[in-house]
Amino acid sequence: MKKLETCLSPEQLALYDLSGKIVVIVDIFRATSCMVAGLGSGIDHIIPVARVEDALPYRNQGYWTAGERNGEKVEGFDIGNSPFEYMRPELNGRGVVTTTTNGTQAISRSAEAGQVVIGAFLNITTVADHLLSQDRDVVIVCSGWKGRFSLEDSVFAGALFDMVFAHYQCECDAALATLSLYYAARSDLYGYLKSASHFQRLSRLHVEKDLRYCLQRDEFRVLPVLKSGRLVPMPASADINRFA
Amino acid sequence: MKKLETCLSPEQLALYDLSGKIVVIVDIFRATSCMVAGLGSGIDHIIPVARVEDALPYRNQGYWTAGERNGEKVEGFDIGNSPFEYMRPELNGRGVVTTTTNGTQAISRSAEAGQVVIGAFLNITTVADHLLSQDRDVVIVCSGWKGRFSLEDSVFAGALFDMVFAHYQCECDAALATLSLYYAARSDLYGYLKSASHFQRLSRLHVEKDLRYCLQRDEFRVLPVLKSGRLVPMPASADINRFA
Repeated sequence: MKKLETCLSPEQLALYDLSGKIVVIVDIFRATSCMVAGLGSGIDHIIPVARVEDALPYRNQGYWTAGERNGEKVEGFDIGNSPFEYMRPELNGRGVVTTTTNGTQAISRSAEAGQVVIGAFLNITTVADHLLSQDRDVVIVCSGWKGRFSLEDSVFAGALFDMVFAHYQCECDAALATLSLYYAARSDLYGYLKSASHFQRLSRLHVEKDLRYCLQRDEFRVLPVLKSGRLVPMPASADINRFA
Repeated sequence: MKKLETCLSPEQLALYDLSGKIVVIVDIFRATSCMVAGLGSGIDHIIPVARVEDALPYRNQGYWTAGERNGEKVEGFDIGNSPFEYMRPELNGRGVVTTTTNGTQAISRSAEAGQVVIGAFLNITTVADHLLSQDRDVVIVCSGWKGRFSLEDSVFAGALFDMVFAHYQCECDAALATLSLYYAARSDLYGYLKSASHFQRLSRLHVEKDLRYCLQRDEFRVLPVLKSGRLVPMPASADINRFA
C-alpha cells in the first residue's frame, strides 16, 4: 500500500526520505495559492527562487518579478504575493520569477523528490486526484513560517489527507495530527484560522480579501508541477497519468 | 502578559529563544513519565545524559543506570524505561543516571533556559500550578521521536496549555494546534493515541501497561526540576515560589 507522510516544517525535511516520492508543497498564506491562481489564469510558467537576488537576472529576460519578505512586496518587484495580482490579464502567457519567505524555500529543499507539485485549497481536488492516480508514496510539506509550524498549512495538509485517506498507509503522527486539526477547523475554516499567528500578521497588512480567497476550494483545475526548475501546469492529457 | 509557546520537536529548538524562560520537557512515552514516577516514589535525583557512554562512569559511584534505545532497555543497564521500574523500592534514596532516545536529548538542548522542569500526565496539575505561580514566559518542548513530531507529546502540551490558557498570551501556532489535538483526544486519550506511531512501536514491545499508566493524571505531586545537571524534586516549601 502507498504511504503518506506529512512534514510540518521545512526545517524537518532532512528527516524525510523524499527520493522517488511525490512531494506536495503547501504555503496557503500565500505562495502556493498564488502559484495555483497564476498558472490557472494563464501565466505560462513560474520560476521559484530562494533569494531576492536570484530573481533579478530574470528581469532582462522579460519575466515579471514577484514576491514578498515578511508578507510585504519586495521593493522594486512588479507584484507582491497576492493571488489577485497573479491573475492579472497582462500576465497571460508570460513568465514570472518569484521568491517568498517560506514557500519557495520549501521547494528548493525538495530537490531530491521524484515529483514536486503545488497544493492549495484553490486546487485541492486536482491534487487529490493526481495523488490517487499515481502509484507513489507521498510527502506533504508544510512551508510554515520561518521554519516554524503554521496552522493554515497544517489544516490544509489534513484536508488533503482526508480526501485520500483510504488509499494510504500512514505511520506518521504529523499526518494524523493534521487530520484532527482539519476536523476541528472545517466547519468554519476562516474563523478557526483567525487565531493563527500568520493570519494575524497578514491582517495587519490589510490583506483579508487574499486570506478569504486562499481558503476557497477548487477555484482551479490546475496542477502546478516542477519541471527543470520551472513550475508549469501539468498537461490535462493522457500525460497526467505519467509520472514525470 | 506572560507568553506561552510550544516547540513540537527538539529539531526546531534553535528557532526558539529560551533564555530566562521556563522550559517544560515532555516525553510521555516514556522518559518524562518515568522521571516523575521515580522522583515521586523516592529516587533522590536523576542525571539525564545524552549518550549511553556518558552513563557508564556513574556506575562506580553507586548510581543505577536506566535507559532505552528504540524503546528497548540498553544492554547491561540496571533498568529500562518503564515507570514501574522507576518505582522499585530498592531505588529509594538512590541516584539514577538515564539516557533515552528522545527525552534526554531534549533536556540537553535546553541548557540556556531559565529553568527546566519535567512534565507528564502523571504530574500535570503540579506543572500547571508551578507555571501559574511564576512570572515567566513558558516554552513547552515536545521530545518527539528521533526529531519528528509525536502525537502523545503534542496532546499533552495541549492538555497543559488548556489548564493555564487564560493566563498567557499566545502567538504560537504550534501551541494553538496542540489545544485542538487535546480537545480531539481528551474523551478517550488511550483510544486516540492508539493510532500514534510510537504507541504502535511500543505495543510491539508489549508495554501496554506502561502506556496506560503514562496517561494517568496526577498520580504524583512532584515537580522535577533541573539543578546543576541533576533532576531533583522541587522542594514543597516556600521555595516553590522562588524561581531558581
